[in-house]
Amino acid sequence: MASSLLTRQLAISLRLAAPGSRYVSKTATKSVSEFEYDAPSMKTAVPGPKSQELLRQLGEIQNVGAVHFFCNYEESRGNYLVDVDGNRMLDVYTQISSIPIGYNHPALMKVMTNPNNVSTFVNRPALGILPPENFPDKLIESLLSIAPSGMRRVQTMACGSCSNENAFKTMFIWYRNKERGYANPSEHEVDTCMINQSPGCPDLSILSFMGAFHGRTLGCLATTHSKAIHKLDIPSFDWPIAPFPKLQYPLEEFVRENAQEEARCLEEVEDLIVKWRQKGKPVAGIVIEPIQAEGGDNHASPDFFSKLRNIARKHGCAFHVDEVQTGGGTTGKFWGHEHWGLDDPADVVSFSKKLLTGGYYHRDELKPDKPYRIFNTWMGDPSKNLFLSEVLNVIRRENLLEVVTRSGKALLQGLYTLQTQYPHILSRARGQGTFCAIDACNDATRDSIMIKARNKGLFMGSCGEKTIRFRPALVFKEYHVHQLLNILNDVLAEHK
Amino acid sequence: MASSLLTRQLAISLRLAAPGSRYVSKTATKSVSEFEYDAPSMKTAVPGPKSQELLRQLGEIQNVGAVHFFCNYEESRGNYLVDVDGNRMLDVYTQISSIPIGYNHPALMKVMTNPNNVSTFVNRPALGILPPENFPDKLIESLLSIAPSGMRRVQTMACGSCSNENAFKTMFIWYRNKERGYANPSEHEVDTCMINQSPGCPDLSILSFMGAFHGRTLGCLATTHSKAIHKLDIPSFDWPIAPFPKLQYPLEEFVRENAQEEARCLEEVEDLIVKWRQKGKPVAGIVIEPIQAEGGDNHASPDFFSKLRNIARKHGCAFHVDEVQTGGGTTGKFWGHEHWGLDDPADVVSFSKKLLTGGYYHRDELKPDKPYRIFNTWMGDPSKNLFLSEVLNVIRRENLLEVVTRSGKALLQGLYTLQTQYPHILSRARGQGTFCAIDACNDATRDSIMIKARNKGLFMGSCGEKTIRFRPALVFKEYHVHQLLNILNDVLAEHK
Repeated sequence: MASSLLTRQLAISLRLAAPGSRYVSKTATKSVSEFEYDAPSMKTAVPGPKSQELLRQLGEIQNVGAVHFFCNYEESRGNYLVDVDGNRMLDVYTQISSIPIGYNHPALMKVMTNPNNVSTFVNRPALGILPPENFPDKLIESLLSIAPSGMRRVQTMACGSCSNENAFKTMFIWYRNKERGYANPSEHEVDTCMINQSPGCPDLSILSFMGAFHGRTLGCLATTHSKAIHKLDIPSFDWPIAPFPKLQYPLEEFVRENAQEEARCLEEVEDLIVKWRQKGKPVAGIVIEPIQAEGGDNHASPDFFSKLRNIARKHGCAFHVDEVQTGGGTTGKFWGHEHWGLDDPADVVSFSKKLLTGGYYHRDELKPDKPYRIFNTWMGDPSKNLFLSEVLNVIRRENLLEVVTRSGKALLQGLYTLQTQYPHILSRARGQGTFCAIDACNDATRDSIMIKARNKGLFMGSCGEKTIRFRPALVFKEYHVHQLLNILNDVLAEHK
Repeated sequence: MASSLLTRQLAISLRLAAPGSRYVSKTATKSVSEFEYDAPSMKTAVPGPKSQELLRQLGEIQNVGAVHFFCNYEESRGNYLVDVDGNRMLDVYTQISSIPIGYNHPALMKVMTNPNNVSTFVNRPALGILPPENFPDKLIESLLSIAPSGMRRVQTMACGSCSNENAFKTMFIWYRNKERGYANPSEHEVDTCMINQSPGCPDLSILSFMGAFHGRTLGCLATTHSKAIHKLDIPSFDWPIAPFPKLQYPLEEFVRENAQEEARCLEEVEDLIVKWRQKGKPVAGIVIEPIQAEGGDNHASPDFFSKLRNIARKHGCAFHVDEVQTGGGTTGKFWGHEHWGLDDPADVVSFSKKLLTGGYYHRDELKPDKPYRIFNTWMGDPSKNLFLSEVLNVIRRENLLEVVTRSGKALLQGLYTLQTQYPHILSRARGQGTFCAIDACNDATRDSIMIKARNKGLFMGSCGEKTIRFRPALVFKEYHVHQLLNILNDVLAEHK
């Protein structure tokens, strides 16, 4: 968290933004301005009349309670999302953190217009049985070129939930093979599994954390504990749930208190592992996000993750790091777990969103022992791998991890300044790279700030109970940070 | 099953193919020949040397035990799949039944080269919060234009498993809302759901059938009972599993016996519903395939499904028809359940594969009462909807449902003839449209026939214990049927 310390000190020492003062910056460096707009431009309140009419139409077909507005993706560019009423907003939510290099990036447009790529879009293969000729090469040049430390094996999937479901299955299979001493399953196991009974379907568990979000399919949902609306009425598994550290921010000012809190949680993790083993539901794996996102942008220290990793190893549990939201460069490193500085950070790392395809890496020891154990019809989508290769080229060519680190510092510094100016409204600014957040005093205030900001051309996301989360694309530059802070400052200045 | 009867009688009365005799037919009607080859063409045994080298490379990254060979999708056309060694095979497995109108169909190539579509591929939206302007229109012109009887609401998803997982959730939410009298959940429910406990996460169940396949994520897998390899070592739910009728074929010859068998299964279904209610795990929904596919191409009569639907209604369970493999025209009607002739065949119908996008339709009563209950990041993929619209245009323009019906009759008739000629090897020919199957005397013989046929240019799929399944694309014409039967006849004639 050295960078947070630095930027906070800078913010305090320089007092860049007194109430009402403006950040002034040149609009755009070359590589961005080539394909994007200069600034937000608003024509109506959001949602505007066209969005409202489309909402009515879509409401006949689906529940539209979560729809914010309808978009004109053709006209959107870079960091700017254009809606159907012609409003152009600075987008720091980016389709729930899933747009890596902005809208309509020229490099991605080129992928589409390359005639060599047409067949990949038109003929979606069943990758597990009939892969295309270039599949090993494409995996090597895309996903394996960014593989986490110690991992040479990767399995693509369609989305984040499927990735985590299959990662869990991989850990269960690995765990039972260990227990069986790698012998063949007994006839009794084979028979009982067909009717959902143990020992064939064993009472194994995955340990997760309060506040976690790992997806919404039934296996994933048993490890998700962020909001009741996700879980209510859906049957679940009796799996152990540990407390996630509730840290005080800024982290550098509460080192001793936070270390105590983390120690308390780790102790609870070990207790739960022992207790669930005694209950006959041993913990096959531990799953955790490097930063709890949906649950409210909750951080923990590298020391916490390092000790948790050791606990997993000590008790023979696989350690699964869910990088669906933290992966892809948004923390300033390609994977959130790289900030821990461990040689051996994980057994399984799952991804989706900014990687455009779902999937997971795993250590050699966890490779499935037989075909068809980890399987489905499509097993991913090569057309998404094509786009990912190009995204990685752009990230390297435009040094986007450095851009994220620089913009992230400016953003966090700005948030520190705002919470100093508006201490009755804002608190707990925190972040890594541009993966930043700040809390409002309550949810109504948070929601009101977000709506007012949107009407001024800044589109943000929420998480947790009263948190605003910032999830810009990797092409989010310092002058975009200044636009964001100026709008937020205006909203806060008007706020009663 | 009137059509089966007809074609079987035809086969017997005409004795079209004596041992060694050949089907002779003109190659290709115009609409197909424009973009495809005339016949298979083999250069090496399959997998050839290039496939074997690629298998070695991919084996460093993934388990490749299920990979048959590597494909050259650029060179594949229509019903013919070309591999990396230059072998061209008549493909009647079509990427596990997921290629609707053959490889590289010109209409789909056009979708790719239309500049208006580029943005849809490049900017994948979070459909649940920020849909594109044309989203309601695209749903209406594609998925809603083929909506099953009585259904005006549809939710897209990424794949078959996600579709079924969310369909199950939809049924659980509906069931609990009924139980609560549509009141708000209690504080106790809200609190307990966060920690996976009842009543917030209630002990509800889904009733499924032995031999069923509904996917491999943890919720789906609890309703899948086709093969042990899918289920072994994965924790599951204690949900009721009913026997699926084991019918004798041809269905018309065993009407009385089959009716008895179906009555036995239906009785067991009612018993299980009562028993699970008494156990405190009431059945919220019943899920079933119109034809069990992965489980071995097991059919049941319209009368069976009609009575099952009534049992569901009587006991207040939702009735979920899983059309992931049967949907999209392959049975000669767009949905397999249309053959039942019911006005009110289902509460939920899920799909994927040939529809190119996953998803499910549901009756109005089952619409989620609040936003974010059925939700994920992408909620489908509009680029798949674009292709689906075009596929539907082609199906209509080229009368492909009629083509399927005609080709299906010829195929089933040919299979009847083959099993008459080779009664020691083949039995139980069955099918609806081109969704056909035949059993070998054992699994080793089945596998051997499939490998020999592949080396002669016919690529088929397997299912169940010893079944060959036929899943051609909708552009599979009668002369393709003749090619198939000729190759199969050659293989069987050589078989010891």
